[in-house]
Amino acid sequence: MSLDAVFNAKSIAVVGGSEKPGTLGRALMENLLFGGYKGRVYAVNIRGDTVFGHPVFRRVTDIPDEVELAVIVVPARVVPNVLRDCAAKGVKAAIIISAGFSETGEEGRKLEQEVVSIARKAGIRIIGPNCLGVYNAHNRLDTIFNPSDRQGKPKPGSIAFISQSGALGAAILDWFSLVGLGMSKFVSYGNAADVDEADLVEYLAKDPQTRVICMYIEGVRNGPRFVEAARRAARKKPIIALKAGRTPRGAAAVTSHTGSLAGEDRIYDAAFQRSGIIRARTLEDLFAKAKALSLQPPAPGDRIAIVTNGGGAGVIATDAVEALGLKMADLSPETQRILQQKLPPHASWRNPVDVIGDAPVERYDAAVRAVMQDPQVDAVLVIFLFQSPALDAPRAVEMMDAMNREFTKPLIACTPGGEHAAKHARLMEERGIPVYSTPEEAVLAIEGLVRYGIILRKLAGSQ
Amino acid sequence: MSLDAVFNAKSIAVVGGSEKPGTLGRALMENLLFGGYKGRVYAVNIRGDTVFGHPVFRRVTDIPDEVELAVIVVPARVVPNVLRDCAAKGVKAAIIISAGFSETGEEGRKLEQEVVSIARKAGIRIIGPNCLGVYNAHNRLDTIFNPSDRQGKPKPGSIAFISQSGALGAAILDWFSLVGLGMSKFVSYGNAADVDEADLVEYLAKDPQTRVICMYIEGVRNGPRFVEAARRAARKKPIIALKAGRTPRGAAAVTSHTGSLAGEDRIYDAAFQRSGIIRARTLEDLFAKAKALSLQPPAPGDRIAIVTNGGGAGVIATDAVEALGLKMADLSPETQRILQQKLPPHASWRNPVDVIGDAPVERYDAAVRAVMQDPQVDAVLVIFLFQSPALDAPRAVEMMDAMNREFTKPLIACTPGGEHAAKHARLMEERGIPVYSTPEEAVLAIEGLVRYGIILRKLAGSQ
Repeated sequence: MSLDAVFNAKSIAVVGGSEKPGTLGRALMENLLFGGYKGRVYAVNIRGDTVFGHPVFRRVTDIPDEVELAVIVVPARVVPNVLRDCAAKGVKAAIIISAGFSETGEEGRKLEQEVVSIARKAGIRIIGPNCLGVYNAHNRLDTIFNPSDRQGKPKPGSIAFISQSGALGAAILDWFSLVGLGMSKFVSYGNAADVDEADLVEYLAKDPQTRVICMYIEGVRNGPRFVEAARRAARKKPIIALKAGRTPRGAAAVTSHTGSLAGEDRIYDAAFQRSGIIRARTLEDLFAKAKALSLQPPAPGDRIAIVTNGGGAGVIATDAVEALGLKMADLSPETQRILQQKLPPHASWRNPVDVIGDAPVERYDAAVRAVMQDPQVDAVLVIFLFQSPALDAPRAVEMMDAMNREFTKPLIACTPGGEHAAKHARLMEERGIPVYSTPEEAVLAIEGLVRYGIILRKLAGSQ
Repeated sequence: MSLDAVFNAKSIAVVGGSEKPGTLGRALMENLLFGGYKGRVYAVNIRGDTVFGHPVFRRVTDIPDEVELAVIVVPARVVPNVLRDCAAKGVKAAIIISAGFSETGEEGRKLEQEVVSIARKAGIRIIGPNCLGVYNAHNRLDTIFNPSDRQGKPKPGSIAFISQSGALGAAILDWFSLVGLGMSKFVSYGNAADVDEADLVEYLAKDPQTRVICMYIEGVRNGPRFVEAARRAARKKPIIALKAGRTPRGAAAVTSHTGSLAGEDRIYDAAFQRSGIIRARTLEDLFAKAKALSLQPPAPGDRIAIVTNGGGAGVIATDAVEALGLKMADLSPETQRILQQKLPPHASWRNPVDVIGDAPVERYDAAVRAVMQDPQVDAVLVIFLFQSPALDAPRAVEMMDAMNREFTKPLIACTPGGEHAAKHARLMEERGIPVYSTPEEAVLAIEGLVRYGIILRKLAGSQ
């Protein structure tokens, strides 16, 4: 059954909806009424009254229209009755934000089981409990209730994020919004009483607005099901996961956090390998790869070419390429010939190609074109030290845009520096070229493109 | 002999100084005349005329006053004669920005030797040739000639930066200025014909404005001398080095960039170990450690405590601590007792201490105080997910400020997120607490404090 009622509901009941300042119920009503969401929104509250001029219904069953999704923030003990009403009303899905379930011990576990059993009988899918819920950047269906003065929400884009941790997920939303990364759908799924990682991966695999699926997980509920779902999804779009609890002490912390069994890390490594999931080492790695995979195609191989106007940055990038097990491309004789012809004598026409500090855009153009055309190159990293007096940044943006249109080969940029560099990095990104501020981060990104290429070739050759 | 004439010259001759737009000579005159530098500045140019209303002298010897430092941007072939004039004038140091020396081949090498020989006879110290020169943020002695619309210059601070690569160094200056990191002195020393890494480390070790010495190097000119200089310096202040050319292909790139012999990487590892140099893995690592060491004391040991309001971020930090070979502190029974008393039932009083999502500042205060007091804890990382409705960010800044004043133990913060988080991160940093945007980066920083503690104890026990 689809999770469309969760992410694309046309009508929502906020159970616990309220106008009372400082309540989650108010925050949710504000998000849904004033945040750009176009569906119908009903407040349900046993206290009655009105919310921002809208009538409040005492029970979900009192709502005169159809309700697709219930967002529930009432105390845990009341939730079973709310769900019975939802069942009677024909609600299709519920996001249970309320805490006080299995994460609190035996009694909570029983309550959670009761809720799931009511939902299952009625065919209601549940996100949560004990979660932040969802943020759909495209239709502004948004249950992330943190105050808007401290919680940024990203612009629409193509990266989906599944987070087992609500608080970390909120910080990631906030960070996406700061750096201008676009998101398709975000979901904090809490205790995963019903909908789990596998369901979400399956749904997002089919979601046309999602090009990349990112995950923060501490464990998975059903290993074999997850592996199968991920394996099917990975044929369509890349999945990048940060699995925390890698170390013994980290695994212990996982148990006291989400109660997941972190399990032997090698087992996760093997499962990810089998699923075609790209495993991120760090949050930075996750973000770097997600951005690259949302904008650029997978690389046909692992041979990287680097063009730079600063030798030092080129050496750092070269070290990173080799340290990650990628290869520095051996440029073809034809490419070397072109570079020798077009670059000044003290430039380096070996890879990394150093167009040197006084390079104008024309010199970059010649060098980038040569390596983009080279059949011995699978992906290209262009480093711009935009501090150089010789380098016209707006024209460099145009040059990269043209290269990106002309060639299908993955193209990535790195622009270390300050404001001027960051400004032109943003312009390149608006044109579909992912940009990074350090050479190492750029190479982590390229690694994602190379890894996804390998995954696609592997999955294509199997069932 | 001191390099004071380089970094603190009271009078400077710009040889090649000019008003002609687009020239280095003009950029240098603008920097020194209008950038805040308080010493005397003389333009020297064979063409005569005036520069911004100041008379231009045809030769250095024509300047009627004393000249401490010559900054030279005339063509390479003219430089020997300029240096002869400098010798006659009693100039103490010269920054030779001009390229066209040993980096270009045999002829250039001879020219460079001639220049050095003139300088040595006259007791003139030389920075360069083929370099950007220096930036002293405290007195604005600034020869970094990139246009000011694309080259940021950092505010005064306590981090010194030595860069073998000019272009990368410029990008680093630019980045420091973007993120608000303070710098003491920067130097791009080019071909190191005279002043080399060892001289610079020696000088900066004695510089009262420098608390941390950072280096980007591709090779060192005189290994044993460098090791000795670093070893003496490391007793006084931390040295962090990014040595590029770690991998075979990176080493090859180094040879075509600075002509340095990158050498076997293990040899550098051993030399750094012996010198007490902290080796950075990446630029990000270098920056993370430099900031921490500029603000916080070295850690007395490697036992880390983590306090967080988000379990996921705590798990990620715990993984990072263990992956880097640091230890998660086992909290003392007394600390555990306090935490059990002051934290709610679902919080975690094991390390990582999870004060959970609804924690107000008071709860953080109790937890941070408890681990700061714990004799079984050597350094503390506090993670704030400032998106939480319960957490008052300005009061959290005050709390951290108070802890930082009350205890001498290293204290570091991590504030993942967007604008609101970044704003309060800056406020914490102004109060001397280094802040990072991901848990992994924060742990890299703590590793720097731990490593420098180990280095100090080791050097104290040796000659």
